[in-house]
Amino acid sequence: MAQKGHGRVTDREYRARRLIHARRADVEPFIAMDVLSAARKLEAQGRSIVHMEIGEPSFPAPQAARDAAAEALKGGLIGYTEALGLPALRSRIARHYRDVYGLDISPARIAVTTGSSGGFLLAFLTLFNPGDRVGIASPGYPPYRTFLTALGLEPVEIDLDAESRWALDADAIEKTHSKTPLAGLLIASPANPTGTIITPEALKGLCATCDALGIRLVSDEIYHGLTYGAEAETALRFDGRAVVVNSFSKYWCMTGWRIGWLVVPEELERPVERLAQNLFISAPKLSQVAAIAALDAKEELENVRAVYARNRARLLNELPKAGMDSFLPADGAFYLYADVGRFTNDSVAFARAMLEEGGVAATPGLDFDRGNGNRFLRFSFAGSESESVEAISRIANWLSRR
Amino acid sequence: MAQKGHGRVTDREYRARRLIHARRADVEPFIAMDVLSAARKLEAQGRSIVHMEIGEPSFPAPQAARDAAAEALKGGLIGYTEALGLPALRSRIARHYRDVYGLDISPARIAVTTGSSGGFLLAFLTLFNPGDRVGIASPGYPPYRTFLTALGLEPVEIDLDAESRWALDADAIEKTHSKTPLAGLLIASPANPTGTIITPEALKGLCATCDALGIRLVSDEIYHGLTYGAEAETALRFDGRAVVVNSFSKYWCMTGWRIGWLVVPEELERPVERLAQNLFISAPKLSQVAAIAALDAKEELENVRAVYARNRARLLNELPKAGMDSFLPADGAFYLYADVGRFTNDSVAFARAMLEEGGVAATPGLDFDRGNGNRFLRFSFAGSESESVEAISRIANWLSRR
Repeated sequence: MAQKGHGRVTDREYRARRLIHARRADVEPFIAMDVLSAARKLEAQGRSIVHMEIGEPSFPAPQAARDAAAEALKGGLIGYTEALGLPALRSRIARHYRDVYGLDISPARIAVTTGSSGGFLLAFLTLFNPGDRVGIASPGYPPYRTFLTALGLEPVEIDLDAESRWALDADAIEKTHSKTPLAGLLIASPANPTGTIITPEALKGLCATCDALGIRLVSDEIYHGLTYGAEAETALRFDGRAVVVNSFSKYWCMTGWRIGWLVVPEELERPVERLAQNLFISAPKLSQVAAIAALDAKEELENVRAVYARNRARLLNELPKAGMDSFLPADGAFYLYADVGRFTNDSVAFARAMLEEGGVAATPGLDFDRGNGNRFLRFSFAGSESESVEAISRIANWLSRR
Repeated sequence: MAQKGHGRVTDREYRARRLIHARRADVEPFIAMDVLSAARKLEAQGRSIVHMEIGEPSFPAPQAARDAAAEALKGGLIGYTEALGLPALRSRIARHYRDVYGLDISPARIAVTTGSSGGFLLAFLTLFNPGDRVGIASPGYPPYRTFLTALGLEPVEIDLDAESRWALDADAIEKTHSKTPLAGLLIASPANPTGTIITPEALKGLCATCDALGIRLVSDEIYHGLTYGAEAETALRFDGRAVVVNSFSKYWCMTGWRIGWLVVPEELERPVERLAQNLFISAPKLSQVAAIAALDAKEELENVRAVYARNRARLLNELPKAGMDSFLPADGAFYLYADVGRFTNDSVAFARAMLEEGGVAATPGLDFDRGNGNRFLRFSFAGSESESVEAISRIANWLSRR
């Protein structure tokens, strides 16, 4: 084999160069994935498991979206599209901003991406230079940290607490910035894992603060549309230079299609386009065609949201009776972030026991918050209604036996 | 608007922070894209244009692949897959290495990616630390430079020449490394834009040199299968620790599906998986399902290759009669890289004239080689046979009128 007989460098150098991966690949694994694989092992042994650990709709993409993809397949050629996406999709997304938010956004400002994942890569590469500090909320979506560190940026965690409804606000930004100057800020509303919506007033203040301090704002709006009371406001309302990240994965039930978008300010159109040409070529074409149709499938998708709303109400009503009675707001998204501090100081062990003894899979909070996550569990209620009924009964049963 | 009234930072700071994109987004645009858009403008005016500027098959994905996707659509739920891809696809790709190369590669070493683009991102992030130098050939595929610089790596261009058949070899690596120590080397065979295949002997020597010098080898094998004489050898034959990048875009005619794969050494499986979980979640599921079927569609795809082979023979025979008589090898891929130095010292102007006056679009060499590209044009022969016939007639006609 060629890898033997390397005489010209020392063994240590050789190992460092040829065997070891880069430091930025030292990423913490998702605990959620470990839970999923433990759950699958139990299922392989014949056990029944209710899955509440995965942040994925259990409903298919709208029928019209699947029909549009099937029609495109008949056409034959599924080639590259323009780097920023099919013009028809960019126009349709622009119309979405008029229909839903009453905002006039030019189609030229829409960049179609390979899921929100592709959007984050494009946005961070376009906005920030290596070494730049970017504020993120804790608890928060774990890949935020990975995106930032992989791209040579420094995540600055801003700890949230109950007093601020677990929502970022202008004060928290000012305090953080005065200690650790930020080049950027990443916000999410509704948030994962808390479901917290930043109120329009707080969002307005936050945008003004970022503007005054010269902080670039990136707003993850992937859970927009999935709200159970007040709607979530877009950062574009208050900051024309914010970069918005969105995706068809959640409201439109299109996770495996890997399709999303960015809204960027005019001056970033060309830099984003050039990077997209080089780094992605284009987003998947079938998914783009399907997404155009999905944007017109409001009735079907509102029925899905109604299922989530009933699941949420059920959990909020019934879990306290079972003894689990402390939750973060859950204004939106499809997560309930439960404080299980009265039961445990080790949410990983607690989740493992609930899975093995109770047959319900949930994600330990440590995935989202390395500081206080040991007291929390995240339940996804994106499953069917019968699953949420079964989950509550199992949890009640398990807690009563503990 | 919130962006007014920013009193706390100077205007200059404000512009720097809020208006300007990051340095690494300063990417040179593809000249090929400018050619494409100029060609589209002429077409909109009613002109007929033969497209030889785009590196994209003009044939659809195999029927069986499209059928598999259509079938999956009927099933409804198109969810996330495992981060490294559907187990059935990883196994089928592993079998491909046994069938085509006689190599035993464990499915665990296959990482399914969102096109080769996703593969490059994953590979470079996993292998290299910021500041690492990575050798690339010039001429070469333009996004290589962008991938490297966007991720904080330093591309080191290794100039190729006719004496070495425009192929990288061990000597070139040693010479470069002695002046500018390399952490990594990226090779492509068959290469874009030259079509050059690195011979098995040269590849073996190159692998041994990388091994001896502690240089990590990344082998772009996206044009494997598209050869017109000797087959291309995989770097895995000679270096078990090479990282191979491949894709279903070229041989399998699946560009817009955005589906590809990496082969990584065992010790990188977990780091690659963790990064993929965070940065991509998964590759598009419909494309994964289709790719499994595509791997069995050899007959249909060999018919496509036969078209390319006839197009290539036609160009190699007829273009010299038209006066264009100097080409790089074109052993594989679907490109002819023509030396037009006897006509011009400005291939951009030459390409523009050929498009406007002759009705044939080709890509100026400056996209691939900033040093000598002013003397070259790249013609893609991935179109139909009638297009290649028409192209030759138009070029002959245009050159005779010049």
